Amino acid sequence: MVPRYSRPLMVAIWQDLNRYRIWFEIEALAAEAMVATGDVPAEAAAAIRTHGGAAIAAMTEADVTKIADIEAVTRHDVIAFLTWLAEPIGPDSRFVHLGMTSSDVLDTCLAVQLTQATDLLLQGIDAVMAALKKRALEHKLTPTIGRSHGIHAEPTSFGLKLAGHYAEFARNRARLLTARTEIATCAISGAVGTFAHLDPRIEAHVAAHLGLAVEPVSTQIIPRDRHAAYFCTLAVIASGIERLATEIRHLQRSEVREAEEFFHPGQKGSSAMPHKRNPVLSENLTGLARIVRGYALPALENVALWHERDISHSSVERVIAPDATITLDFALNRLAGMIDKLTIYPDRMTENLESLGGVVHSGEILLLLARSGISREDSYKIIQRNAMATWTTLGHPDAKRFRDHLLADPEVAGRITPEAIDTAMNPNLHLARIDTIFERVFQE
Amino acid sequence: MVPRYSRPLMVAIWQDLNRYRIWFEIEALAAEAMVATGDVPAEAAAAIRTHGGAAIAAMTEADVTKIADIEAVTRHDVIAFLTWLAEPIGPDSRFVHLGMTSSDVLDTCLAVQLTQATDLLLQGIDAVMAALKKRALEHKLTPTIGRSHGIHAEPTSFGLKLAGHYAEFARNRARLLTARTEIATCAISGAVGTFAHLDPRIEAHVAAHLGLAVEPVSTQIIPRDRHAAYFCTLAVIASGIERLATEIRHLQRSEVREAEEFFHPGQKGSSAMPHKRNPVLSENLTGLARIVRGYALPALENVALWHERDISHSSVERVIAPDATITLDFALNRLAGMIDKLTIYPDRMTENLESLGGVVHSGEILLLLARSGISREDSYKIIQRNAMATWTTLGHPDAKRFRDHLLADPEVAGRITPEAIDTAMNPNLHLARIDTIFERVFQE
Amino acid sequence: MVPRYSRPLMVAIWQDLNRYRIWFEIEALAAEAMVATGDVPAEAAAAIRTHGGAAIAAMTEADVTKIADIEAVTRHDVIAFLTWLAEPIGPDSRFVHLGMTSSDVLDTCLAVQLTQATDLLLQGIDAVMAALKKRALEHKLTPTIGRSHGIHAEPTSFGLKLAGHYAEFARNRARLLTARTEIATCAISGAVGTFAHLDPRIEAHVAAHLGLAVEPVSTQIIPRDRHAAYFCTLAVIASGIERLATEIRHLQRSEVREAEEFFHPGQKGSSAMPHKRNPVLSENLTGLARIVRGYALPALENVALWHERDISHSSVERVIAPDATITLDFALNRLAGMIDKLTIYPDRMTENLESLGGVVHSGEILLLLARSGISREDSYKIIQRNAMATWTTLGHPDAKRFRDHLLADPEVAGRITPEAIDTAMNPNLHLARIDTIFERVFQE
Amino acid sequence: MVPRYSRPLMVAIWQDLNRYRIWFEIEALAAEAMVATGDVPAEAAAAIRTHGGAAIAAMTEADVTKIADIEAVTRHDVIAFLTWLAEPIGPDSRFVHLGMTSSDVLDTCLAVQLTQATDLLLQGIDAVMAALKKRALEHKLTPTIGRSHGIHAEPTSFGLKLAGHYAEFARNRARLLTARTEIATCAISGAVGTFAHLDPRIEAHVAAHLGLAVEPVSTQIIPRDRHAAYFCTLAVIASGIERLATEIRHLQRSEVREAEEFFHPGQKGSSAMPHKRNPVLSENLTGLARIVRGYALPALENVALWHERDISHSSVERVIAPDATITLDFALNRLAGMIDKLTIYPDRMTENLESLGGVVHSGEILLLLARSGISREDSYKIIQRNAMATWTTLGHPDAKRFRDHLLADPEVAGRITPEAIDTAMNPNLHLARIDTIFERVFQE
Repeated sequence: MVPRYSRPLMVAIWQDLNRYRIWFEIEALAAEAMVATGDVPAEAAAAIRTHGGAAIAAMTEADVTKIADIEAVTRHDVIAFLTWLAEPIGPDSRFVHLGMTSSDVLDTCLAVQLTQATDLLLQGIDAVMAALKKRALEHKLTPTIGRSHGIHAEPTSFGLKLAGHYAEFARNRARLLTARTEIATCAISGAVGTFAHLDPRIEAHVAAHLGLAVEPVSTQIIPRDRHAAYFCTLAVIASGIERLATEIRHLQRSEVREAEEFFHPGQKGSSAMPHKRNPVLSENLTGLARIVRGYALPALENVALWHERDISHSSVERVIAPDATITLDFALNRLAGMIDKLTIYPDRMTENLESLGGVVHSGEILLLLARSGISREDSYKIIQRNAMATWTTLGHPDAKRFRDHLLADPEVAGRITPEAIDTAMNPNLHLARIDTIFERVFQE
Repeated sequence: MVPRYSRPLMVAIWQDLNRYRIWFEIEALAAEAMVATGDVPAEAAAAIRTHGGAAIAAMTEADVTKIADIEAVTRHDVIAFLTWLAEPIGPDSRFVHLGMTSSDVLDTCLAVQLTQATDLLLQGIDAVMAALKKRALEHKLTPTIGRSHGIHAEPTSFGLKLAGHYAEFARNRARLLTARTEIATCAISGAVGTFAHLDPRIEAHVAAHLGLAVEPVSTQIIPRDRHAAYFCTLAVIASGIERLATEIRHLQRSEVREAEEFFHPGQKGSSAMPHKRNPVLSENLTGLARIVRGYALPALENVALWHERDISHSSVERVIAPDATITLDFALNRLAGMIDKLTIYPDRMTENLESLGGVVHSGEILLLLARSGISREDSYKIIQRNAMATWTTLGHPDAKRFRDHLLADPEVAGRITPEAIDTAMNPNLHLARIDTIFERVFQE
Repeated sequence: MVPRYSRPLMVAIWQDLNRYRIWFEIEALAAEAMVATGDVPAEAAAAIRTHGGAAIAAMTEADVTKIADIEAVTRHDVIAFLTWLAEPIGPDSRFVHLGMTSSDVLDTCLAVQLTQATDLLLQGIDAVMAALKKRALEHKLTPTIGRSHGIHAEPTSFGLKLAGHYAEFARNRARLLTARTEIATCAISGAVGTFAHLDPRIEAHVAAHLGLAVEPVSTQIIPRDRHAAYFCTLAVIASGIERLATEIRHLQRSEVREAEEFFHPGQKGSSAMPHKRNPVLSENLTGLARIVRGYALPALENVALWHERDISHSSVERVIAPDATITLDFALNRLAGMIDKLTIYPDRMTENLESLGGVVHSGEILLLLARSGISREDSYKIIQRNAMATWTTLGHPDAKRFRDHLLADPEVAGRITPEAIDTAMNPNLHLARIDTIFERVFQE
Repeated sequence: MVPRYSRPLMVAIWQDLNRYRIWFEIEALAAEAMVATGDVPAEAAAAIRTHGGAAIAAMTEADVTKIADIEAVTRHDVIAFLTWLAEPIGPDSRFVHLGMTSSDVLDTCLAVQLTQATDLLLQGIDAVMAALKKRALEHKLTPTIGRSHGIHAEPTSFGLKLAGHYAEFARNRARLLTARTEIATCAISGAVGTFAHLDPRIEAHVAAHLGLAVEPVSTQIIPRDRHAAYFCTLAVIASGIERLATEIRHLQRSEVREAEEFFHPGQKGSSAMPHKRNPVLSENLTGLARIVRGYALPALENVALWHERDISHSSVERVIAPDATITLDFALNRLAGMIDKLTIYPDRMTENLESLGGVVHSGEILLLLARSGISREDSYKIIQRNAMATWTTLGHPDAKRFRDHLLADPEVAGRITPEAIDTAMNPNLHLARIDTIFERVFQE
């Protein structure tokens, strides 16, 4: 976790205080459930809730240190916490954690933390979607050149570009909801998942109060395929961030200049070159995406634990659970702000669109020629010939535009009228169905 | 694709013949849809269907070679195919692919192939689940030791182990269904996704006939976050295979010997050591899982294509789409057979369960002591002391079992009766709630 | 392995025939070494060499099939081969593989195949370096704009760009040589590496004749950290290919047009847009790089085998050893050809260099101002102000160039002469030390 | 960076204070070099060294905060530092960073930090090697069973196992030294690497004083293939840690019990099961290895930056440079301590070795039979038959050992004497060449 790439809200979820609060809640809920199963006297459960709850509410960093000191001896984090908790609760503390195993607490706590983190991530996606939608509607009919292979293809609208990213983030949102369901389970099933010393009603009670589902079959732990699926989902979302960031980086290139990240007053782009305004946010997002992707791998390797569990997943999760969610949370919010404030240059889009002498309309001309009765093969050759002639003289003082090359070509001249060519070369032709697509995207 | 790890059914999906059949179907359906939009004469669409269909039906490897030869000149695979297809169709071939771009065909075809592949994978998962369920029910109450950290923990049942894996594959099945939906979309939207030369009804028609959804907004291509999510799902499934394979490898260890892969008559385990029977299928599955996991990465890197598309994803998909699905398909089917024929040794399970002198019941004794009024902390120390005494003398001629150590301990003796200890040490105690768990797992 | 991305020379290394030839060579060499150790009669070793060698020399696909049929029964590849080999050799075949274990043959064979593959890869790197050097020298002093963050920074030369890639491939060459040493070891040490039934002189003999080093300590197998390091090296090289491919893709962008992949006569860039000439080779190389990178992961996961070995690495290597080397070999050769035939547009480079009104010289002007006695901070502000004024009016009919903005700025005017500005804005200033750098790069 | 898995020495390398100290050193050295090139007055260089040096020596966290505050405005870290540094230096501060670009400082600083980190890692490897060597020599001739596929194969010595890991760490050491050379370069070459405003002698001077090599050709930055190779090397080392940790985890399994991590007095293995002593260090190391491996990927994706550089690598490196080195440093030191204090049970090794009734000697018997004139094929069948008979009756009250099965087999009886069998079954046979191997390993 690098403070530079962290938001406090997400960081707080992964701090010791939050973790201990959740641990306590699990223990208190379990004790309360055990009253019903006859394992714990009602007074004891009440004492746990009252005295333990008070201690937790008053918990400070000093307590965190105290627990760490106990752990240095016991070498066991949950036992250290329970030892600390025993003091305020007193003799009834022997009813805390009764028949439970550490993983009952640890894994259920991780589920709660991950759902809290996911809820923040969903807000981040919502912010990205809101920014994309706003700018997409704003530029719904702003013509711009579409590019495949980095080469001008056919006109499109800038809003449509953004709509595509919006749709991707809508998918990412749905994926994240699914991933949230994956990891939102509770297991209070004992040392090897048999409920030997624990009535399943305890699990059900704790799950219900924490907003979790019951894990149908746990071993000692909640199975890690759930977490692997979760972190893979974060990796997919990160890749979507990179796709959008890459688009902006391209648009801001000096030769393109169709969009530009907001440049703050006082900002310096380069210590050596005062003229620079760099797409540093997008580049940063590209790097953050790589980081989040990297965390999917250890999560996948965590699945094949030995027998009823080994603890190799634990160190991995201590690192990647905070780091992946904190980084992605930061990236989503940075992205939302960047899109929201993006400077967009429609004039420059038009300029670029027209910069290749009109060859970008070759597809429409191909259809015209084909309709005139020439075979597809021959039409293609004729148009390719004229397009290349246009292309290779771009920038020459006496360069002809594609339209003029075509009209001068005897195989074209007799078959297509100048008016037909002009119609075919109207960029608005390409905007006719933007509405239809926008309805698909934004009304779902 | 290594023949050794491939099943013909899956291989066929990725062969040129299947691909060309799907390409043709897309072109024919598109032409038929264009009759309704007025772009193609009904006779032309009929000619395409009839003559093109006949050519496709009669297609052989010689045609595949012919198309490859054309591609060597045009350096464009779809144009090569269309050139080949033009001959049997004749002049009406100019109505084939009208206003479409190659990706309309390629991406929709990939969607069809991936859904075909997924359907086979789902069958593979079903086979694994069937085998797991059969063996789980068979050994529902076969006692065996549960292990955490590779160390004996508490008794469980062998059926419960398998039920856990069944539940994981049930989750994998659900994930794969979601992943199937992710990639089952159709785009016939033209060079940059604007439908400039194509009525959206064409896309709808083709999609409906191919069992695909319409892609809400495509660029030139179907967005690759869908495929990234798909291959990540395969990676998660592969990791589940590895988890089960790892379990079997552990159980077959010489020191454990609780289960064993079926050893074929005539099989040789080692060229140098005739006594060997190795868990080679499980080890093989472990390796195959690594391979499938490795394919998720390039799929994730494929997401951030440039602008409306670049073609860097294509080489990746030519490799990983067949290789990942073929490998996973093979692995699932190998796994199903392996579980189905697994030799299971219940006697050896009992023997291992009892091999540590009874210390595996320390958890239950801890509860007994705690109920007798000793603090959790003190109970723990007493039991740990006796368990360690038992453990460190294991195998000694005059070794005492845990029960006897406990009864000889003055802090225990007065508080717990021998009968209570014997009750606590009955493995069946741990099987009491297996039914409940099985209901959760198998009745969903 | 996809034929489209494979060269026959590399494919042959991984075919069964080559593998069996190497297996035989190892067995024959081992038998010959065992004559010296007294384990094998000289006549037997001679019979193995003569009759076995003849059979191997005459080996056809029919034999490959025959061995596969035997393996279907024995389920053991080496035993199947030895059974096939026993027939031509006759009774002396009992001296083949004496005291050896399969891995002695398999691992040493893999070492030979990997060294053969590496030698081809080194040729590929040499071809890339030769092409880069040729074009770098050709364009040593061709001015072009250097870009950081995709934004024009300062002038550089096109040759220098290529020299940087040359230096990277020189590093890659050195890495690959190191990686070759890593995997070029021989182990003939028996079932668990103790040489129990094998004199170490046998290993030394085989190693020497195969050009391999002796593995200091093997278990049953050659340790897999060697192979992990090897495949990671391929991943680094692949990433270098991607960096160069990415540069070309950028240069070919429609807005940049400074370089272009050779476009074959008859080639078609797009089925729908006849005007397209796309950087498809570079994009393809980008995808191939992703594929090769993906193979590093399973290689890393192969390291931690169980005890003296498990066979989970085997399926991984059957896939990635051929696939990674074949793909990288193809990529290197495609890259070499692409660079060699790259069309370069120096005029367009100059045009782009000048397109931002001269702001790309802001760094030199900053030094001028600083030398004139203004603080760095203030100099920066003055120049940034003028650069932004230039930038934001780019393309306007009455736009002033950076030079003119500066001269009109009262804080600049008195301090720097127009001549000093003109000197500072001479692109050749940036080429003065290219020679020095070229000496560093090309004379090593 | 998780404090739990961090050592202060390594953490300090990555803290702001160390970074600013190195930045200053680079700036001061550069200014001193510029005296020789005539760019900076000697007095100014002295002032920078004296006043700047004093400020750096007195730097506190308050200064770090002050710089952060400046960066919040300039949004540029190096400019923020230079602004802070200007104050103590006074007017001569305009000679700081003269003609340099931020990356000259940042990349050279990263090189220094990585070499510092690498030196610590090398110490960690040395500690691991020392522990392995000590224990290997101690158990050079301790017989233990070698296992392939988890199945008993043939005897080996416990020292030989450790010697194999020692040899792997010796390779890892060599790799790390190579990786150190990879990243130990200095670039002071200006905005796009042309030395336009910087004499190359400045770079040479700074490099020499920092113990770095000169980067032959930089762009704006040091090329990132170097760092990719570096982090891949860390991944390989991590995998070696996992291999050794996996071995220990296996040996500590309840059924094996041949070795055990040191169990601290007061340590608790499980909150619910007082009898547990778990190999938690080894499991933890397994997880840490996964984490370090995961960092190799973003490093590989960092290579293909755009043109002369983009800054996407920066966020990646801010995370993985500290996190990968801190985690690996912690893991190496944990591993060294774990091996050093490992409890080893030779008696239990012997017990396990003999537990399969002697079938582990089947290889030696195979050689005996083959020497007696029976074909390899037939010998194999005879021995396999007897080994399986032994194996399947293991643990039965009237079970015969392999030796007795063989002697009762008429096809064996006439050919091999009981004495010959006994000789073949002596485990010491397998220890005869341990010395030879130890010489190879430990005398290099």
